[in-house]
Formats: sequence, C-alpha cells, structure tokens
Amino acid sequence: MNSNNIFEYIKNINKKSKEAFNVVSRSNSKDRNLAILNTSKIIKKEQEEILKANEIDIINAKKKQLNNAFVDRLLLDNKRIDYIVEGLKQISEMSDPLGVELSKWTQPNGLNISRISVPLGVIGIIYESRPNVTIDAGSLCIKSGNTAILRGGSDSINSSKVLAKCMQKGLESANLPGNTVQLVENTDREAVSVMLTSTGEIDIIIPRGGKSLVKKIQNEARVPVFAHLEGICHIYLDKDADISKAIKIIINSKMRRTGICGALETLLIDKDISEKAVPIIVKNLIESGCRIKGDVETKKIVDEIELASERDWHTEYLDAILSIKLVDGVFGAIEHIGKYSSNHTESIITENTKVAETFLNNVDSAIVMHNTSTQFADGGEFGMGAEIGISTGRIHARGPVGAAQLTSFKYIVRGNDQIRE
Amino acid sequence: MNSNNIFEYIKNINKKSKEAFNVVSRSNSKDRNLAILNTSKIIKKEQEEILKANEIDIINAKKKQLNNAFVDRLLLDNKRIDYIVEGLKQISEMSDPLGVELSKWTQPNGLNISRISVPLGVIGIIYESRPNVTIDAGSLCIKSGNTAILRGGSDSINSSKVLAKCMQKGLESANLPGNTVQLVENTDREAVSVMLTSTGEIDIIIPRGGKSLVKKIQNEARVPVFAHLEGICHIYLDKDADISKAIKIIINSKMRRTGICGALETLLIDKDISEKAVPIIVKNLIESGCRIKGDVETKKIVDEIELASERDWHTEYLDAILSIKLVDGVFGAIEHIGKYSSNHTESIITENTKVAETFLNNVDSAIVMHNTSTQFADGGEFGMGAEIGISTGRIHARGPVGAAQLTSFKYIVRGNDQIRE
Repeated sequence: MNSNNIFEYIKNINKKSKEAFNVVSRSNSKDRNLAILNTSKIIKKEQEEILKANEIDIINAKKKQLNNAFVDRLLLDNKRIDYIVEGLKQISEMSDPLGVELSKWTQPNGLNISRISVPLGVIGIIYESRPNVTIDAGSLCIKSGNTAILRGGSDSINSSKVLAKCMQKGLESANLPGNTVQLVENTDREAVSVMLTSTGEIDIIIPRGGKSLVKKIQNEARVPVFAHLEGICHIYLDKDADISKAIKIIINSKMRRTGICGALETLLIDKDISEKAVPIIVKNLIESGCRIKGDVETKKIVDEIELASERDWHTEYLDAILSIKLVDGVFGAIEHIGKYSSNHTESIITENTKVAETFLNNVDSAIVMHNTSTQFADGGEFGMGAEIGISTGRIHARGPVGAAQLTSFKYIVRGNDQIRE
Repeated sequence: MNSNNIFEYIKNINKKSKEAFNVVSRSNSKDRNLAILNTSKIIKKEQEEILKANEIDIINAKKKQLNNAFVDRLLLDNKRIDYIVEGLKQISEMSDPLGVELSKWTQPNGLNISRISVPLGVIGIIYESRPNVTIDAGSLCIKSGNTAILRGGSDSINSSKVLAKCMQKGLESANLPGNTVQLVENTDREAVSVMLTSTGEIDIIIPRGGKSLVKKIQNEARVPVFAHLEGICHIYLDKDADISKAIKIIINSKMRRTGICGALETLLIDKDISEKAVPIIVKNLIESGCRIKGDVETKKIVDEIELASERDWHTEYLDAILSIKLVDGVFGAIEHIGKYSSNHTESIITENTKVAETFLNNVDSAIVMHNTSTQFADGGEFGMGAEIGISTGRIHARGPVGAAQLTSFKYIVRGNDQIRE
C-alpha cells in the first residue's frame, strides 16, 4: 500500500470501529459475556488452524534469525492455547464493569445525581509480536463495551489474523458486531502513525511492549496514551525489619521472574542495619543466582560485589542483576525513589507501622507496598482478572489496567421539574 | 523574547512547577486551605492595586476596540472582587479531595489493597482574558495538591499578574512554595506551543475558553487535554410529558443565561404531541424573547418560525435562538442526539419513568437528565464547589471538573510477608 492507501485503510477501520461502538456500548453484559465464551469455544475448535498459522510465523521468525526469547513469545502450542481458552472463560465470568454506580448524592434542591460507569470508547492497542495479546486485549475491550483496533507486531501477523477471526465469529454468534474487534492487517509502520494521530476517532492508545516501542508511541501520539514506560521497582529495607522474612521477600521480588515489569531492580538498605543485613542478603541473592552491584558503602561491607555507577540507579535490568544502595532511613529511601523510580511499584519491609505509613504516604508510585513482594504488581494478583498492562501515567488509569479501568462515566441527574434560579 | 528564550522561559517554569509539586503534593490539607484563605484576605487587602492594574487592561482593550462582551469579561470591580474572595473562602472550606479511600478489598492471600486519591500533577491552564479564572483555576489546583501553570489571555495580563502575586503570597504565608501557582507572563503565542509539547513536564492541559481556542489546543497538544469543545445541549419532550411543567423547564434551559455551555440549543419534540405542544411552546419562547428555527414539520404547525437548515443542528448558538425538530419517539431523539450532540448535557421531559430510563441509559453524554433544566450542568450546582470547566471528553474527567477531578490515585498494598508463588 502507498501512504494514501494506508491512510484510507486506517480511517476506514476507525469508522467501522465507531459504528460498532454505537452498538456494543449499548449491549447488555449477557451478550458480551456470551461473545467471549463463544470465542473460547471457537479457538478450541480451530486449534489446528491456529497452530498451522503460528508455524508459518515461527518459520519466518527463524529465517529472520530473531532471538530465542522473541521466538518463545511468538510461539503457540496446545498448552498455551488452553491457557488462552481458560483466560477467556474467566473474563466471561467476571462481574460487569459497566453500569456500576460509582457515587450517588442528593442536592438541597432535590436533584438526585449519580455517577455511572460507561464504556470508554474506541481503543487502539499497539503491541509486539505476541499472539496472546490479540485475545487478552480484544476480550477485555469486549467485556467493557469498548471496541478494539489491534495492531500487533508484523512477525505474529498470521497467528493474530486467525485469532482475531475467531473473536469476530464469537461476537457475531452473540449478535454483536464483528467489527467490535478489528485487526490492522497492514504491517507498515505508517499504519501505526495514522492510528497515533486519529484524534476524535480513536479515544485512547495503549502500547504494550518494550521501552523503545512505548517511548516512540508517546513521542508521536496525538491521541491520549496510557503510559507504561518501565518498572524500576525498589524495596526499602528498614532498620526495624525482620531480616529472615525480608530475605524471602527480596529474593521473591527479584528472582521469581526477572523479566516482568514488577521485578525488583534496586534494593535500598537503611544504613543503621547495613553491617548486619548486607552480608546475609547478598549471600542469599548470590546463591539464588543473582549478580549484585552496590554503591561504595555497600561494597565496603561486602567486597566481592561489583561497584554500581550512577547509571545503575536508572536501569531496569529485567535480568538476574540487582543494585544495592545504603540510605539514611525512610526519608533517604523516599528521596532516592523520588529521583530514580519509574513510579511503578515500590515496597517497604519493616515491622514499624509508623515508618511504613510514612513510606506509603510519601512515595508517589502507582503501587506502594508494605511487607510484600513487588511481583504482586499484577492485575490478576489484584483480583482484577486479566490486565492489558500496568500504567505508570497519572491520567485516567494508574497501575494494572483491567476491564474496570477501560471505562469512563457519566452523570445521571433525576429531577422533579427543578429549574435554576 | 526570541524562540530560544521563550522555550527556556517555559522549561524553567515547568521545572519550578515540578519542584513545587514535590512539596505541595505531600502537604497537609490544613496548610493548603490556609493558603487559599490567606489569598482571599490578601486580595481584599490589595483590592485597590488589583483595580488599578485592571484599569490598565480595560484602557488597552478599549484602545484595541475589543467588543463590549470581551471588555465585560475582563472587568473587575468591587462586587466582582468580593465574589472572588467569597469563592476562595468556600473552596478553603470544602472537604479534602486527597487521601480519600476510593475502594478497598482483601485478596484470598491476605493482601489488603486500597485505592487512594492523590494529586494529579502539574496542570497547565490556558484561558482567555478573564482575570477571575486566574484565581478559580489556581485555587482549585492548590486545593487538590497540584501545581498550576497559568497562561491567561494577553489582554488580562496586568490584572492576572497582581492576582497571581496575591496567590503566591497566600501560599508562602502557609509555608507552601509560591511556585505552586505560576503565571506565564510572556504573552507570545509561542509560549503556549511550548506548554502544549511539554510532555513529561506538564501532566495535563486544561483549556478554558471558546471553541476556536480549544480546537487549536486539541490539535496541537502532545500533553493530554481535558476536552471541552462546545455544548450543543438537547431537550427531548416526550409524548407523556406534562406540558405546563415542560414549558418552564424549556424556557429556563434556553433563556436563563444563553451564553453558557449548559444552555439548551435544540429542542426535540415527539411527533405524537407536536400538534398540541409546538404552538404553546413556541408562543412562550417567543414571548420570552427567543428566536425560533424549526424543521419543515415544525414549521407546518407554526408558520411564523424560520426554517432550520442542516447546519442548525450542529450549531451552539450561545444566544436567544432555539432550533426545534420533531422526532419519532424516544429512539428518534436518541438517534438525533447521537448524531449531533457534543456530548455535554441532554435532558428528557416525561412522566413515563420507563421511557426516561431508556433515554438516560442510551444517551452517551457527560450529563443526562430527567425532568430538569440543562442549566444545572455546573460544578457548583452539582455540589462540587468551584469548577474549572466541563469536560466533554471521555478520558479521566467527564462533566464538571472540580477539585476531585484534579486527582489521580495510587494503590496501597498492605501485606504480611506474602511472596508470589
């Protein structure tokens, strides 16, 4: 396609999405849940065709010598399809995020005012070559009465096409517009640019992928973006912590899965317990396979660690590497986090409730925790069901973005012939 | 200033705003309320100086032969200053929008999760030459723990400078940073452009002014914008309405103040009662000084009205003009509104509760009403205290934007040494 054609192609998708929104935003939850449940059945039925399409993507990816981690994210197999099918069932059973009375009051003149959740609108989702996101994102949009325009990575296009087709069949089987979920089949970069400037047609863009993808989108977008740049998550180990409990939480936060955005990247340790805490914590981390970088003060206590540089405090390793710094109590921790955090998730470990409250109130991140693992920063673990990502921005959605975060609201005012003076 | 200097000038304001945010976002409500109350006292004390500055603006505006409505919006007098002073007192007495527990639950693993309101961030407000907005917008930002970068119209610059100074003195008297509220004193258009592209430095832009200003800002902004384009508000008069009550509501909606965004612009009348309703409603409206435009069907019933064109259904008159159209029941009304509304405020008049609920559920506007005047579309009338404007967008804030809408939230997770499996 040339530029003009790509422009027209996306504009046409936007138009069809708005038309579908006018229907699906007024549909009832029974129909939307049926569409999601039927999609799960259709995917199970079409399993062979999905695997065949995925095989083509995998072969192409290997030809292009894409790395193993990339190919692994791209791969579908029977087990992963079962996982997708199970996820859809769960989403279909979640409570309806629409029509929820968020607040209600009566004015002195007798007007009854209530604030009710409604669908958000046309949602553009731009993601890397992970076929499962096609289903996750699409089904969350259906659940919340929105429409989705999905632009997946070009290397997963064959898999995504078949999956999107299953979802459209599921929608139609519930008498909802198939265009509630549309896949952008054009893999030119320019298609993304048109989406990012579709103000008034696409209501929000949600990027899902690595830092470079998100940064690019944030820089170029005119449509509002739910930001999630990175997760430089911190734990602050206070002098009043129980060290044996702390070790478990720290190792879990760092090592359970190192590649997720809720993984611990920097450990701040209160100077007052450094002599006692640093050696045992470092020992346990190294034994669990973690590489340690520390500031000068930390290295004075345990010499075998590497010396951290300024750059480390800014780094999301997403790997079995941890940076450690000694700080001057809870306020030292708050200051460091204020300077280096990506405002994703930070946790304090202490038995001192007052110090914990100081930390929870003064750290300005989407998620702040006390005595627990940063790896709980996840929509599922928050009880939101599936999530489309974790927003580190401050506008509209913050933290895990589930179906409830994909809603807007309206005010309903019930009167009794009141007129304004 | 040249372009480079303007760029540096705004970037410096942004930086100071972020520094102030780090303090004011953690301040307690007592100090913030004191700052607002002290501002009211300082304004009263500095009344003469304010009026003198305003006189310069008025003289300049008259020299430029700006129209009377413009000069009237620009004018400050003793009464208007008292009104500003009173408004500040009221804002200082409103409940704290921060630290509110928006929701709370416990996960099966024992994690206690709560969602708490926090300040939104650095807020850029771009408005026309109305000095009172300097105080309204500034004080709402202080109330909600945010910082404000105010860019008022160039014709009010002398008044705004003195008022902003009063607010900064008020802040400092409560030991809060004066830079919590900053006025952009550079009146070049380019200063606005730099603000609109200050992604990551300014969190949200709120335009307050006419359609052309808002449209310009929406087109140019990279920073998210709380949109309020226009208020093409509708009333649907159902066949089951009480006509005598309806007349009062319609006249109030249209004529109480014709220049506000909540004023009625188009009246939709159920075909089934048109013969009875149209003549008496038109008669009453004309008697109250309103000019009427109607579709062919309406004009057939009352010939003395003007014939409306397609353009009228798209028009926000902001004047004593009303367009009338006959529709096929509540679904006809919903369809017309879906096509022409600006999603601000729409009202249905009927004694039939079932029909009312159909309207309230299916009309997708920020505010939907039953049996009451569209002129109640106002933060004050909603019990929110002051408002900074009414948002017709779907992201973050919708409807009246008061202090509570100028907040974000964070999740606080209280654990008991849980680690993730």
